[in-house]
Amino acid sequence: MKRTFLKLAALAAGAGLSAQPALAAVPAAEAVGGGTAYILNTLLFLIGGFLVMWMAAGFAMLEAGLVRAKNTSTQCLKNIGLYSIAGLMFWVIGYSIAYPGDFLFGGLFGMAESGPIYSMQGVGEADTETGYSVASDWFFQMVFCATTASIVSGTVAERVKIVPFFIFVTVLTGIIYPVVVGWEWGGGYLDSEWGFSDFAGSTLVHSTGGWAALMGALIIGSRIGRYGPDGKVNVFPGTNIPLATLGTFILWLGWFGFNGASQLAMGTVGDVSDVSKIFVNTNMAAAGGVVTAIILTQVLYKKADVTMALNGALAGLVSITAEPLAPSVGQSILIGGIGGVIVVFAVPMLDKMKIDDVVGAIPVHLFAGIWGTLIVAWTGDATLLGQLVGVLLTAVWVSGASAIVWVALKYTIGVRPSEEDEIGGLDKAEIGVEAYPEFART
Amino acid sequence: MKRTFLKLAALAAGAGLSAQPALAAVPAAEAVGGGTAYILNTLLFLIGGFLVMWMAAGFAMLEAGLVRAKNTSTQCLKNIGLYSIAGLMFWVIGYSIAYPGDFLFGGLFGMAESGPIYSMQGVGEADTETGYSVASDWFFQMVFCATTASIVSGTVAERVKIVPFFIFVTVLTGIIYPVVVGWEWGGGYLDSEWGFSDFAGSTLVHSTGGWAALMGALIIGSRIGRYGPDGKVNVFPGTNIPLATLGTFILWLGWFGFNGASQLAMGTVGDVSDVSKIFVNTNMAAAGGVVTAIILTQVLYKKADVTMALNGALAGLVSITAEPLAPSVGQSILIGGIGGVIVVFAVPMLDKMKIDDVVGAIPVHLFAGIWGTLIVAWTGDATLLGQLVGVLLTAVWVSGASAIVWVALKYTIGVRPSEEDEIGGLDKAEIGVEAYPEFART
Amino acid sequence: MKRTFLKLAALAAGAGLSAQPALAAVPAAEAVGGGTAYILNTLLFLIGGFLVMWMAAGFAMLEAGLVRAKNTSTQCLKNIGLYSIAGLMFWVIGYSIAYPGDFLFGGLFGMAESGPIYSMQGVGEADTETGYSVASDWFFQMVFCATTASIVSGTVAERVKIVPFFIFVTVLTGIIYPVVVGWEWGGGYLDSEWGFSDFAGSTLVHSTGGWAALMGALIIGSRIGRYGPDGKVNVFPGTNIPLATLGTFILWLGWFGFNGASQLAMGTVGDVSDVSKIFVNTNMAAAGGVVTAIILTQVLYKKADVTMALNGALAGLVSITAEPLAPSVGQSILIGGIGGVIVVFAVPMLDKMKIDDVVGAIPVHLFAGIWGTLIVAWTGDATLLGQLVGVLLTAVWVSGASAIVWVALKYTIGVRPSEEDEIGGLDKAEIGVEAYPEFART
Repeated sequence: MKRTFLKLAALAAGAGLSAQPALAAVPAAEAVGGGTAYILNTLLFLIGGFLVMWMAAGFAMLEAGLVRAKNTSTQCLKNIGLYSIAGLMFWVIGYSIAYPGDFLFGGLFGMAESGPIYSMQGVGEADTETGYSVASDWFFQMVFCATTASIVSGTVAERVKIVPFFIFVTVLTGIIYPVVVGWEWGGGYLDSEWGFSDFAGSTLVHSTGGWAALMGALIIGSRIGRYGPDGKVNVFPGTNIPLATLGTFILWLGWFGFNGASQLAMGTVGDVSDVSKIFVNTNMAAAGGVVTAIILTQVLYKKADVTMALNGALAGLVSITAEPLAPSVGQSILIGGIGGVIVVFAVPMLDKMKIDDVVGAIPVHLFAGIWGTLIVAWTGDATLLGQLVGVLLTAVWVSGASAIVWVALKYTIGVRPSEEDEIGGLDKAEIGVEAYPEFART
Repeated sequence: MKRTFLKLAALAAGAGLSAQPALAAVPAAEAVGGGTAYILNTLLFLIGGFLVMWMAAGFAMLEAGLVRAKNTSTQCLKNIGLYSIAGLMFWVIGYSIAYPGDFLFGGLFGMAESGPIYSMQGVGEADTETGYSVASDWFFQMVFCATTASIVSGTVAERVKIVPFFIFVTVLTGIIYPVVVGWEWGGGYLDSEWGFSDFAGSTLVHSTGGWAALMGALIIGSRIGRYGPDGKVNVFPGTNIPLATLGTFILWLGWFGFNGASQLAMGTVGDVSDVSKIFVNTNMAAAGGVVTAIILTQVLYKKADVTMALNGALAGLVSITAEPLAPSVGQSILIGGIGGVIVVFAVPMLDKMKIDDVVGAIPVHLFAGIWGTLIVAWTGDATLLGQLVGVLLTAVWVSGASAIVWVALKYTIGVRPSEEDEIGGLDKAEIGVEAYPEFART
Repeated sequence: MKRTFLKLAALAAGAGLSAQPALAAVPAAEAVGGGTAYILNTLLFLIGGFLVMWMAAGFAMLEAGLVRAKNTSTQCLKNIGLYSIAGLMFWVIGYSIAYPGDFLFGGLFGMAESGPIYSMQGVGEADTETGYSVASDWFFQMVFCATTASIVSGTVAERVKIVPFFIFVTVLTGIIYPVVVGWEWGGGYLDSEWGFSDFAGSTLVHSTGGWAALMGALIIGSRIGRYGPDGKVNVFPGTNIPLATLGTFILWLGWFGFNGASQLAMGTVGDVSDVSKIFVNTNMAAAGGVVTAIILTQVLYKKADVTMALNGALAGLVSITAEPLAPSVGQSILIGGIGGVIVVFAVPMLDKMKIDDVVGAIPVHLFAGIWGTLIVAWTGDATLLGQLVGVLLTAVWVSGASAIVWVALKYTIGVRPSEEDEIGGLDKAEIGVEAYPEFART
């Protein structure tokens, strides 16, 4: 088919002409028939869900590429393990905390009436009333939960043992994250009291992961040898840059599902048009982050740092996530571009503070997440105060709860391997499978 | 859009309220209009089809990561080659054997009336009656055929020459696999006589691949130096664990298409809800396999073996494939978890029997495939006897036919490279392109 | 669900029976209701769009795998950078040149009335008349623009600095490519005067990228040491073949979106059936390219060259892109197979001419693109003369404009790094981040 047919139809529309007579004009808000809308809404959750699930692979590749070879197998195991645990915990208890229906304690904590374990009703029961399949909704919400845990694993890589890491993930995905979701998407405190707005989770997902990661970095401490006694920062370069690049592209792809399907509906002309706009804005914010990071590092260091470009893309994506629909394309580029600026300056700043963030997840997910949340006061339908309250409440709860868990782990089973094991690499100590056994080391 | 809008609509549904007035309640079994259902059914095949096509990349990465560096280029070539051959053969003859319409010889072998080569009718012919595009159906069926061949390439890696391997794939995808499909999905013997049930192919695809792989491993023999004369098993570690991890994530993603689109229809509220439930169960079975494998290896060996975790995911996925719709979420986790147990115990068992399975495809696809098929007697609509008959008939046919082909190749053109070529690596002998020419070997 | 249910329904259709009473026969050309068609058309753009976006990762991996280790980080940066620039430029000016509505200068160059920057109208304005969301269309068109730039980066890898490369990409994606698109998909000169036919862009995308790459290779020159003074060709083998294989699989997957969604509509039974046929033909052309390349290299060199097999797949895909709908399956295999032949012979031919094409992009995208465009005179609705005019006009414009830009860059800021920097690797000189810092070099 020639593209001109449809394009000319578009151009002709103003003149009352149409090259596609079968496609009559339809009011934007009109829903298609109930059954069809139900199918299309569900399909959006399924497509969005598998795209966000794919982000788990993106984090795995990004992190596997940015750690050192001696810890790469461990990072792979942690990522496939955390995705699995997130799925189990979000079923066992998480979803029922996140979407409890009737809230207790002023909307701060709740539990679904049916109990912790989420029971997906069959077809023909209540779910046919809601406009989508409950299982598709659960699947879509679950992969967001897993994303939160993925963020943590990058920051605390290379010096936390597998068992305490997985225990932390269990609490994070079962309780800490679902409580935050309950405040907003579950209709709780932030939603009802403050009109807090977080379309796809700059705060709920990314800052939550970021705070949990920051607490981990502080409590676990930095990798051996990372910071010299004289303030010198020793660079531990990532072992496989193409893998990190692949991970970033995977995350970028997955983000179309992350933001696009957060529209939650595709059964009207208006909804699917919104999903399209979200695709464009999401892409352009990422592009803005990349270009800004490349230009900035080129200007500052006379080199175009590829890891900064990758993190620039991710920071752009996180920045637009709180409101990917309302901004214009130009605004989206600007919002994402500032995300790129944040990364370029925050990564060395954290090192100055001796906060050891292996992959740069704190600048990307926490700092850009806060930026993206606050800017909704400009682009979206929210007040700066409301957004600030959301950011701060999340900070207090996630930092506090995460700190308690990390400290409890530290003083019970311990979080760090022995010095010998850490220097020799976690792969040897914890996994028994080297990532690249045949490649000689420099 | 706030997620609460739809969620509250769901909660309100019991009270007769609805936040989305445009979405009226729809009976679960009601189909949307014929044209729309046709489009949605076809779309399910197309999305499912490209997801399963993507599994070819997953197998390629999994196998490229688990063989040694000297055979990696060969494994890449085998995988892109087998996917191509499968497509050609399934068109030349495979589909017409798999879906012959009128069967000969009591439903055990058939051939479509129109002859071996499948002719996809154009639009406006009979296919508009069937509820989906025949080309989309063929595409979806074809990628399953390719999956079967992918399974074999992993087991027999590192010691079979390219030409005999491709000849085996030609017979497997053109005849051996289609015959099995004809028995069940084609409406033949197992379907009509035994009520055999295999939703997405634990037996038809995975066990078929597994039996063909097992015969290959037995007839071709183990890699040089793999088993010492004193019963010692020499470990040949995989050369690139992140690549194997990526492959596993790709397969996990593709499996949503594999199982989800095997619903074969998305044109009713009931169908799309079933697809959603399949997504959830598929994911949870894989998660169960991962967690079980991690815990078991941690307990047994004091190490969390990452390759076992990856194979645990795959075994969980294979286990749920025979019936991913009927089980509850809890049952799915259990079924997948037992798949993980099977892998952890079967991998060393095969080594004790000196059956050299490079990537663990026999435990994952054959053993977990049998387990998944038999358990349908508990979760689904099938008898244990019927399931056993299906397993055994597949075993006899695929093992027999595969053995004949492997033996014929062995005693004609030969299947193995010379000892010198095998030790030097197939990449040098057969491909002339090293996988990692710049990386020094340990 | 048993697959037999639907299959038997298909078989029974001739006898007037139907196992799916809810799915009545529907005329092929009948559109479903306006709102539903709008949603489905838009959904096709979104799915196709994210699949083609994913091709950016495919090019990145293909190129990262085929360059030498010392230039791999640079190649990763170039790819994520060019994708970002393409998005920005196609918004700033590209789309308005590509789809200008009213043309100037006899359909050779135009500009949308609304000015260079594309403003996506909101829902409820003119776009509801056109049958799809304008944002989804823009997104889908934008990723094609990015593909064009990806082609160039592979050919000129390893010896062009980052800044001039990005400047070239800026002009290519903002002006050179959009002008070509305007001639045909924008309804300009080639479309209105010559009935030129290029369904998904064998010429518009692939040859355009190919001509720009060829001019780059000629003007920038070959890599140091590539061609000896005595006519000897020094092979610089790719550093990571599994990565190149992954890239090819990604591109193959993305091509279902590239060709399939170029149908531009999914709101009728006929359209979705056409998309399905395109999926099949696209897949089979690639399979034909792979098998041909494997057989040819095996016969010619007694080795099955994996990089030729990968490029064979891509050449098959490019070949079918000008007309993936009209050919029969057999024709598609043949067209793709000849694409594979072209690659096997053109790669050494270019080396004889001392044209240094690092990844083989000129044979794949330019030569196979021309072949695919011309053969439409046989399979599609076009004349050989019209196709030739399209090929030649594109050649003249893209070569001329690209040459001017490359030459201007060469004699102003310079395109090549210093000899020392090139020999030491661009990663060290331009990026400061080595791709594989821990792996010792042979």
